[in-house]
Amino acid sequence: MRVISEHRCYDGVQGFYRHVSTVTGTPMRFSVYQPPQAKHQKVPVLFYLAGLTCTEETFMIKANAQRFAAQYGMMLVSPDTSPRNTGFPGENDSWDFGTAASFYVDATQEPWSRHFKMYSYVVQELRDTIVQNFPALPDRMGIFGHSMGGHGALVLALKNPDIYKSVSAFAPVTAPSQCPWGQKAFSSYLGSNIADWHQYDASELMKQRQNPFPQGILIDQGLEDQFLDVQLLPHHFEAACIKAGQHLSLRRHSGYDHNYYFIMSFMEDHIAYHHRILSA
Amino acid sequence: MRVISEHRCYDGVQGFYRHVSTVTGTPMRFSVYQPPQAKHQKVPVLFYLAGLTCTEETFMIKANAQRFAAQYGMMLVSPDTSPRNTGFPGENDSWDFGTAASFYVDATQEPWSRHFKMYSYVVQELRDTIVQNFPALPDRMGIFGHSMGGHGALVLALKNPDIYKSVSAFAPVTAPSQCPWGQKAFSSYLGSNIADWHQYDASELMKQRQNPFPQGILIDQGLEDQFLDVQLLPHHFEAACIKAGQHLSLRRHSGYDHNYYFIMSFMEDHIAYHHRILSA
Repeated sequence: MRVISEHRCYDGVQGFYRHVSTVTGTPMRFSVYQPPQAKHQKVPVLFYLAGLTCTEETFMIKANAQRFAAQYGMMLVSPDTSPRNTGFPGENDSWDFGTAASFYVDATQEPWSRHFKMYSYVVQELRDTIVQNFPALPDRMGIFGHSMGGHGALVLALKNPDIYKSVSAFAPVTAPSQCPWGQKAFSSYLGSNIADWHQYDASELMKQRQNPFPQGILIDQGLEDQFLDVQLLPHHFEAACIKAGQHLSLRRHSGYDHNYYFIMSFMEDHIAYHHRILSA
Repeated sequence: MRVISEHRCYDGVQGFYRHVSTVTGTPMRFSVYQPPQAKHQKVPVLFYLAGLTCTEETFMIKANAQRFAAQYGMMLVSPDTSPRNTGFPGENDSWDFGTAASFYVDATQEPWSRHFKMYSYVVQELRDTIVQNFPALPDRMGIFGHSMGGHGALVLALKNPDIYKSVSAFAPVTAPSQCPWGQKAFSSYLGSNIADWHQYDASELMKQRQNPFPQGILIDQGLEDQFLDVQLLPHHFEAACIKAGQHLSLRRHSGYDHNYYFIMSFMEDHIAYHHRILSA
């Protein structure tokens, strides 16, 4: 693991790092914010998965999260949104597919299956890297994200509630099997078998669970979000939660759109929510 | 004035706007954050001048200021850092001169004098535009900025203490006549007469004043800032303030560098400082 840069921030350390991933077989970048409490003790970890077109920097620059991470003593970790520079045909042709659009799945279809293993990268290798190199409490981890990364956070948490004790999202893609972004990505990454898609579809996964997060799930959604009715479809996830007996706090906010100006407006609530569960 | 985009943010409005400036003779962009209080009343205004390479977006994306502007009921306004696409030779050759490097002066030398009139643009035209188009209190305005923009904030305030009732800065260029960035810019924008440079040099202006800001000036400076000893030179401004009887709170912070991770760490103090003065 190599340090790209480190900056003092709210008396903690905002760092950017690079390593060669054995899971993806590519160089990968990630960012870590260590709160001031981490100088003297291990702290809970909150993973953030970013959306389409983003990088490992986006969350740390735009989301106003470090202030609350410093206040509550939580580490923040954000990976890049896909492997890059794989040389695959079409890798950089679309903003919603390929580079910066991994959808956090383990691809099974050539050529993507050779490198696009973001699910295993985040759940296993990045988590191990954090525990080995930073003062992280391995049994106190949560996850959240935005849009495609909100989808990723819900899916990773639902498949691994033993690892991620808390989960929340901003404007997540909640039913990728039923929206154009998800259908485009899943058909190329996972093939044509819908049953395989459902393994990475939060609404489908939730239907098969029984109250997996007894302390609830928090989702914020802007009602002026241009992607709400076509791509995000939170009502599917809401219905699946009712079926699963899962308490969901789905807050619909009038006037807010899909931007980070929406995310920053409600960041404090999310950090406080994860802190409450992870510090219990 | 045309709206580029508007976004709900902390129950206020984050907007981006464009107009054709009669002062610069070019299109100019600027950003405005209107706090929720501005829905019902006029509010104080805090101008922010950004540094080299930045745009009217930088502050609104990176500085974590809207939260406190919403809390204290203050409008935030940030202009672009120079005219753009003037066609002048060398306009885009340097990151520290030309585009995004106006140094907030009124250029007197050809060709720059044809468009690079950022001092008058900010002090007159942008201020008039804000008062005419937004619920702004014209007699309750402050100014702050970062690096080149910290220089701009100090200079604009010192030349117009009747307009800007409060002034602060993050890592400002405090003595441009004595640093490479300032010497490069001023020699091309203002010519070779050092007396002309001193009209835009905060340390020189301060020497000629008598306690112009009786409620003090706030400056934060990181001690790991890579530009501290060559470009920023806060000790010159500190000495000038002592000579002028000006109270200066120059806070030197160990470990912090020149980045927005430094700025965000101390943003709350600056907004609170301006609020205290502008709400009195």
